[in-house]
Amino acid sequence: MYYLGIDIGGANTKAALIETHQGCLKGVGAVKRYFPLWKKRRELPQLLREVGRELIGSKETPPIGVTMTAELCDCYKTKGEGVSHVLESCRESFPGAIIKVLDVYGGLIGLEEAIEEPLRVAASNWVATGWMVSHLYRDCIVVDVGSTTTSIIPIINGRIVAEGRNDLEKLMNGELVYTGSLRTNIAALVDRVPVKGGWARVSSELFALSGDIHLLLDHIGEEDYTTETADGRGVSKGEARARLARVVCADAEMLGEEEILELARYIYRRQVDLIVEAIEEVWGRVRGDRSKDIPLVAAGLGAEFLASVAGERAGFRRIIDLSGVLGGDVSLMAPSVGVALMLASMMEGGRIGLGGGYKARGQHHQRV
Amino acid sequence: MYYLGIDIGGANTKAALIETHQGCLKGVGAVKRYFPLWKKRRELPQLLREVGRELIGSKETPPIGVTMTAELCDCYKTKGEGVSHVLESCRESFPGAIIKVLDVYGGLIGLEEAIEEPLRVAASNWVATGWMVSHLYRDCIVVDVGSTTTSIIPIINGRIVAEGRNDLEKLMNGELVYTGSLRTNIAALVDRVPVKGGWARVSSELFALSGDIHLLLDHIGEEDYTTETADGRGVSKGEARARLARVVCADAEMLGEEEILELARYIYRRQVDLIVEAIEEVWGRVRGDRSKDIPLVAAGLGAEFLASVAGERAGFRRIIDLSGVLGGDVSLMAPSVGVALMLASMMEGGRIGLGGGYKARGQHHQRV
Repeated sequence: MYYLGIDIGGANTKAALIETHQGCLKGVGAVKRYFPLWKKRRELPQLLREVGRELIGSKETPPIGVTMTAELCDCYKTKGEGVSHVLESCRESFPGAIIKVLDVYGGLIGLEEAIEEPLRVAASNWVATGWMVSHLYRDCIVVDVGSTTTSIIPIINGRIVAEGRNDLEKLMNGELVYTGSLRTNIAALVDRVPVKGGWARVSSELFALSGDIHLLLDHIGEEDYTTETADGRGVSKGEARARLARVVCADAEMLGEEEILELARYIYRRQVDLIVEAIEEVWGRVRGDRSKDIPLVAAGLGAEFLASVAGERAGFRRIIDLSGVLGGDVSLMAPSVGVALMLASMMEGGRIGLGGGYKARGQHHQRV
Repeated sequence: MYYLGIDIGGANTKAALIETHQGCLKGVGAVKRYFPLWKKRRELPQLLREVGRELIGSKETPPIGVTMTAELCDCYKTKGEGVSHVLESCRESFPGAIIKVLDVYGGLIGLEEAIEEPLRVAASNWVATGWMVSHLYRDCIVVDVGSTTTSIIPIINGRIVAEGRNDLEKLMNGELVYTGSLRTNIAALVDRVPVKGGWARVSSELFALSGDIHLLLDHIGEEDYTTETADGRGVSKGEARARLARVVCADAEMLGEEEILELARYIYRRQVDLIVEAIEEVWGRVRGDRSKDIPLVAAGLGAEFLASVAGERAGFRRIIDLSGVLGGDVSLMAPSVGVALMLASMMEGGRIGLGGGYKARGQHHQRV
């Protein structure tokens, strides 16, 4: 059986096609597209068709699970308008298909119901990630650092115990930090940076992004820098240095390579601090009498250089990179894989095996 | 005699035509255009021609004084490239005219010289403001809050005693704060905001601007909100509220009017804090045995609700709004008027009178 999971964000859309066989996960194919909704809103149905075709090929359209964060995009006046547009686009792109929408309580509901209760399905994608990981580790803290945001998902006794059910609640309780591995404006990360032996205030423009920092520090390669840059130029280190120099109103002629690297290192530390703080906040609420020996599961593009580093800094002793367990694609696109798995479990009347066994490239399929 | 002063910024271009008579300032005409250089770079010569024609009419092209901050715009790879493009655009727009460029030491130099030494003329516009005010008050602190940035210019014994000669140095010593009355990204102003009895982290996107805050708090009217909004929508209060709600990933249906106003008030206080801090820093360096009885001169669009409020908060007892002394247009466009006055003084071989007398609408012309 095949199932398609789609995770529609404001800047990136991700989709995963999973294949199950006798209740076990057999294979995953996934695609990710940088698709800035605030510029291309009208083309969403076309994008979804393309992404679907790329994964499904000539096969029959499988059942589709949808989750989103796109409704926050400022091309929509309200979240309600956003949810409607996203779901109508899905319906238009896959006529006649079974489409289910993930809600923030872990349910998969019909399109009409979702459009009627938009806040129930808005920003639900962390639920899919949490659900998937909860089948691997009964007690853990998931830290999923994407290109734009970081979700911290506590799992205790095999259940997601997140308290926030919408972005605002999560921003208030540490379950969501609006910082990511590529798209975060440096001006939103720091007020001052060390330069030439002193401290400089920073410009409040969009002059450079976290992607520039992580490129310069070799956390990512040029091929990982999949979003638009701040100045529309390329993703070479020279171009990234020019952008970063501009954050203190300088240019790459006024600041040397080492001076710009010093800026990058400082900003990186501050970004890790933000995630550490949120991990501590969530942990303080759910720890009970548990110790920091429970796993901290790192996922997303920033799994290694942000989630894991922050987890270690927060004192967790078992850091598990989800890509090592389920493969890189699954870690990078956990919500789209997760929602496809949830749909498979619902339709096949039981959990689909992945625990301890399945790896994107692996051969073990085991029912959990 | 007529003189044209042009202040070319990254987001706004301002120009002032002044008329002098027997060594006194007789009149000022001024225009301001929102012109986002990062989108319209190629149209700069055309803009300059239009602005010139609007002010000069059928008269002969007068001598022109140019100052800029546009070279920082990320449509230019380096400041050198920016300075060249801006000055070549001036030459193209006003063929045959006398054009002088303000340098950061207060000199007016030729185009060729300026293009050869771009860092000498980059970000020089505060010099024109300081020069003009130094003829009104021998000892004062000028706080000029524009749409995008705030310049703090100390004047002692009739001379500008600023220590920074470029933006980076000024960001380091408090003479430049990259915060303004319209264009500042809220994500660059605050990390957390009070909401529903708690504190929410903020989104790092460009969802709302300082202009939204000041519109909601009645500091500015819709007609003053002359820059592009964050979502490209209008400048009504309803639209501003929707933008501000999105900063905490909510929408105007999740947060009530009063809750959004509470956000605005908090962010406003934080913006004032940034300016207070910088005033204190500059003051600490230049005060000597002076007291806070010397005037704090507030200028720019944020003169009243940012510069004056910050000056009072910093303990200055004489707050002078430049618009009350020289008229609103001069206060709003101090650098373009200032550079025209500097050019007039240079060409007429003496200072042009404005002190204590001239007001944009007034009749007193007095040589200082």
